[in-house]
Amino acid sequence: MGSPVHRVSMGDTWSRQVHPDIESERYKQTFDVERLTNILDGGAQDTALRRKVESIIHSDPEFSLKDNYFLTQSECYEAAVEKKFHLQMLAQRQGWAEDSREAYYAYRTLSGSLGFSLQHIFLKALRSLGSEEQIAKWVPVCNKFQIIGTYAQTELGHGTYLQGLETEATYDAATQEFVVHSPTMTAIKWWPGDLGRSATHALVQAQLICSGARQGMHAFIVPIRSLQDHTPLPGITVGDIGPKMGLDHVDNGFLQLDHVRVPRENMLSRFAQVLPDGTYIKLGTAQSNYLSMVVTRVELLPGITAELQKACVIAIRYSIIRHQSRLRPSEPEAKILDYQTQQQKLLPQLATAYAFHFLARSLLEFLHDSHDAILDRDFSLLPELHALSAGLKAMVSDFCTYGAELCRRACGGHGYSKLSGLPSLVTKVTASCTFEGENTVLYLQMARLTKDSVHHIQTLMRSGADEHEAWNRTTVIHLQAAKAHCYYVTVKSFTEALEKLESEPAVRQVLRRLCDLYALHGILTNTGDFLHDGFLSGAQVDMARTAYLDLLLLVRKDAILLTDAFDFTDQCLNSALGCYDGNVYERLFDWAQKSPSNTQENPAYEKYIRPLLQSCRSKL
Amino acid sequence: MGSPVHRVSMGDTWSRQVHPDIESERYKQTFDVERLTNILDGGAQDTALRRKVESIIHSDPEFSLKDNYFLTQSECYEAAVEKKFHLQMLAQRQGWAEDSREAYYAYRTLSGSLGFSLQHIFLKALRSLGSEEQIAKWVPVCNKFQIIGTYAQTELGHGTYLQGLETEATYDAATQEFVVHSPTMTAIKWWPGDLGRSATHALVQAQLICSGARQGMHAFIVPIRSLQDHTPLPGITVGDIGPKMGLDHVDNGFLQLDHVRVPRENMLSRFAQVLPDGTYIKLGTAQSNYLSMVVTRVELLPGITAELQKACVIAIRYSIIRHQSRLRPSEPEAKILDYQTQQQKLLPQLATAYAFHFLARSLLEFLHDSHDAILDRDFSLLPELHALSAGLKAMVSDFCTYGAELCRRACGGHGYSKLSGLPSLVTKVTASCTFEGENTVLYLQMARLTKDSVHHIQTLMRSGADEHEAWNRTTVIHLQAAKAHCYYVTVKSFTEALEKLESEPAVRQVLRRLCDLYALHGILTNTGDFLHDGFLSGAQVDMARTAYLDLLLLVRKDAILLTDAFDFTDQCLNSALGCYDGNVYERLFDWAQKSPSNTQENPAYEKYIRPLLQSCRSKL
Repeated sequence: MGSPVHRVSMGDTWSRQVHPDIESERYKQTFDVERLTNILDGGAQDTALRRKVESIIHSDPEFSLKDNYFLTQSECYEAAVEKKFHLQMLAQRQGWAEDSREAYYAYRTLSGSLGFSLQHIFLKALRSLGSEEQIAKWVPVCNKFQIIGTYAQTELGHGTYLQGLETEATYDAATQEFVVHSPTMTAIKWWPGDLGRSATHALVQAQLICSGARQGMHAFIVPIRSLQDHTPLPGITVGDIGPKMGLDHVDNGFLQLDHVRVPRENMLSRFAQVLPDGTYIKLGTAQSNYLSMVVTRVELLPGITAELQKACVIAIRYSIIRHQSRLRPSEPEAKILDYQTQQQKLLPQLATAYAFHFLARSLLEFLHDSHDAILDRDFSLLPELHALSAGLKAMVSDFCTYGAELCRRACGGHGYSKLSGLPSLVTKVTASCTFEGENTVLYLQMARLTKDSVHHIQTLMRSGADEHEAWNRTTVIHLQAAKAHCYYVTVKSFTEALEKLESEPAVRQVLRRLCDLYALHGILTNTGDFLHDGFLSGAQVDMARTAYLDLLLLVRKDAILLTDAFDFTDQCLNSALGCYDGNVYERLFDWAQKSPSNTQENPAYEKYIRPLLQSCRSKL
Repeated sequence: MGSPVHRVSMGDTWSRQVHPDIESERYKQTFDVERLTNILDGGAQDTALRRKVESIIHSDPEFSLKDNYFLTQSECYEAAVEKKFHLQMLAQRQGWAEDSREAYYAYRTLSGSLGFSLQHIFLKALRSLGSEEQIAKWVPVCNKFQIIGTYAQTELGHGTYLQGLETEATYDAATQEFVVHSPTMTAIKWWPGDLGRSATHALVQAQLICSGARQGMHAFIVPIRSLQDHTPLPGITVGDIGPKMGLDHVDNGFLQLDHVRVPRENMLSRFAQVLPDGTYIKLGTAQSNYLSMVVTRVELLPGITAELQKACVIAIRYSIIRHQSRLRPSEPEAKILDYQTQQQKLLPQLATAYAFHFLARSLLEFLHDSHDAILDRDFSLLPELHALSAGLKAMVSDFCTYGAELCRRACGGHGYSKLSGLPSLVTKVTASCTFEGENTVLYLQMARLTKDSVHHIQTLMRSGADEHEAWNRTTVIHLQAAKAHCYYVTVKSFTEALEKLESEPAVRQVLRRLCDLYALHGILTNTGDFLHDGFLSGAQVDMARTAYLDLLLLVRKDAILLTDAFDFTDQCLNSALGCYDGNVYERLFDWAQKSPSNTQENPAYEKYIRPLLQSCRSKL
């Protein structure tokens, strides 16, 4: 039955009493919520370990998130660095290794409030692109935080299109150094997290030039700030890129390199080497450079999915407490989740949140199966992995952004308040749409091959357009094809997960409904394609819609239990609307009163309001 | 040909030279941009007056927006109050009356950066719901800013459903006063702008109780802060609702009323009166209360549309400067606006921005025609106006939010930077989706009457569901019907506007393309409905798609000119990506360096980063 004690954990006055409107939703359980939580976690032991870590984190006031919504950008950054520092100390005390389950759960609990997350990307790239000697040299230094690393790829004028990057690394055989340089304004590195005010080293992607020949993109470890006093090293101009619509806690930065010299050993050389005399030796394919991006993309998926899950938890719990209008004149105002329009918004998102959970898990398994092979220079799986990870990362982040925003808006005005927790979820997941590849570009890396697009290209080419123009003029259709394929892969992975649950008929039934809801929702939002190609008739679409509306009612009954099963703690949700106990309004009023706008003086009164009011003295 | 001098106006180094990539787009004009600007403004004289006001505003450093993105919530609020104060002084000096065109243009120029905007709503409600005596008493006091008013309708637990509001105003015949009271926590007024830290008076919507009978919602003028020292008056608990995802400059507030007494004269009494002895006299229909909401909704439309227009200007100009990948291997990297995927994102938004301009104008005309009749207690037009304003406000704010966000995302990573101007546009327009009625609720106020929904209701009722349940279970279909009707009204108003342009064939042609693009885009994103009902065959959909793709190419050619025609000044756009001259990267780099995160110390270094780096002293 799960441990409500674990969930009701804000430690405030209201947590002692669960709101009757939400309690009644939990009264009749058609399936064992705790069992579903275990399945999501990967087993009962994992659930127990996760809860243990969460409990350690939450019991330490250094990790409290409760003032997060009141901080300025600089304060957010400082708080994130502080939390990272304390977590590092805690991990040392607890003996949690960097790659342990415990560390993973600790990061998950503090998701989006820790500094130095680029250290992880730096390490991934190092392990993927570095030689064994380089890994042996740099990994321990990173793990002990003797350096703080970031990954510097995108430039002011260039994004995911690696060939377009302008930063140059020119080999100087006389000194056995690379000269790393930003030749233009558009070549300035732009956006890397932790770069603005923190990092000491950057893994810089640059065009390698040796013996006068351009050899394409390679990765270089470039020290950027003094380990003594943190000032920028000679030739380095570095700073923060300024305010963003979210991620206040991250110091995304810029980096301009003016003929910065690094030793020959600082080029990562698993797949390519430059010999002392400047001879270039290639040890892998041109695609091998994409490996670290692929790894990063796939590992982003569970985190992105978790944001949608949290948004669903918050919006669905709130929709049980919120009443509006009457379904029948004689009745009291109804819970808004009892309106079909609200179910139509939220329940497909809940289904999506479950679907992506199983998708991410199956993709991670596929990655782990193929990753070792690639490190052994077997590149046969890389194209598929690249395409799949590109398309699915695009779909997951698109849908999660759309879904989280939909959840936010489904909470009406209160979803606009930061205290709901939803705006920060939305901006965080929105950022994921451009991290590691803008989504349209990613989809296009996947599409090439459906009947329609080929047909269109051929027609255009017959009419005189050349191949490249024809491709451009049909990309909209390619995009649709890629999206449809992603949808198919998701339903497939969900179905495969269901097949493994033979011994759990109750849980399996409720998940089956979510899977069906996800699939039907996909069909109904794209009926044009299905009808157009004759895959479905009008009557079949009507049947699908009827089945869909019936499913909404069934999933509605279990909605609260399905959100409980994700087992997010109240502290982790950090939402006045989404707590387990349903005491929405009390918490919203209390949290609002703690805002600095209420606890601090209002200088605008003396300066402007008073003079304005008294400029023509009122006789009221 | 328009005056570039008017547009290139940031006064910085780069404005002196227009980027060649954008200059070439303006070289060949297929229509007279200045003429189109005049049409949008309503005539050449209006254009001239608007530019004159803009020039006065921009020449005054008090109104500069350039530091806006670096301010904290409290600083934003203070800056907005300051600007409002200075504008008030400027208007006095210039002799701009509150309802003058000059004042309108000044507000438009400073859109989203002025305090006390609720004064306007307060006045609207007063003029709509107040008696002639009340209007004569309060309007001058407001216009001179002897009081600062706000409009307090929504409550912590209640939104647009007026009947559900809990705040009570009980008439006490003994003292001839109303006792205004919040009986529960959910009755606390929540969200009104300017309430948190500024307003002295609130127009409070409350359930009227007199002679023991409940008479429904009425509006009461309630003084809330002392005109002497701004402290809350007895019985008043008032404050700021805390941080939001945007609108930092507005002090949205809460208001809890503990048996606050106001004189009988403070109930607005155009449509209902309470006599001294407590007799209730009704002078209008129950719907008359909705009038001020209708007026507010319609007047919101041009402002919401302007946000989408600005987003289009920024994203389209940036898409001309930004290059990525190659269309053909032999060519340099292409302008991203030359990719069909980018055109597909942005150009339908541009078409929408034009369509809504003409829609808003035609709706405002309809409103003005019917408003006087309603004030004369002729309510025959109110239902249509209510339905139309509800549906169209929902559609315009939904589409503008979607479109502005799409423009933001089409700028890749830079669209996530506040310096692009896009995040603040998006959050501002997103707020409009819940102002004055959550959109789903609004659409449903419009739908009742299509073939399909009636058919579905009948089927469900035959199968045993009662009428109210049947309505709930078919609202998704009603919603679609309402949206389709809104779409139709928009195309109709655009077409009517085109008919008036007989003497302007070149402008008319380019607008005609936008109208067609808007209509075709609507059909193609809803092909399911058209195919399902047999309105279109698969072959016809293919023809529509071909026509649509051809139109994209034609509109692409004029895209920059069409964004120039909106004639937003650089200061007004306040975007590093969207300036007229196209010097995107120079401005982004320069603005970023001015961020407080670069100009201020980093306390996190001494406190956490240094101890962390030195906890195991590096030997690097």
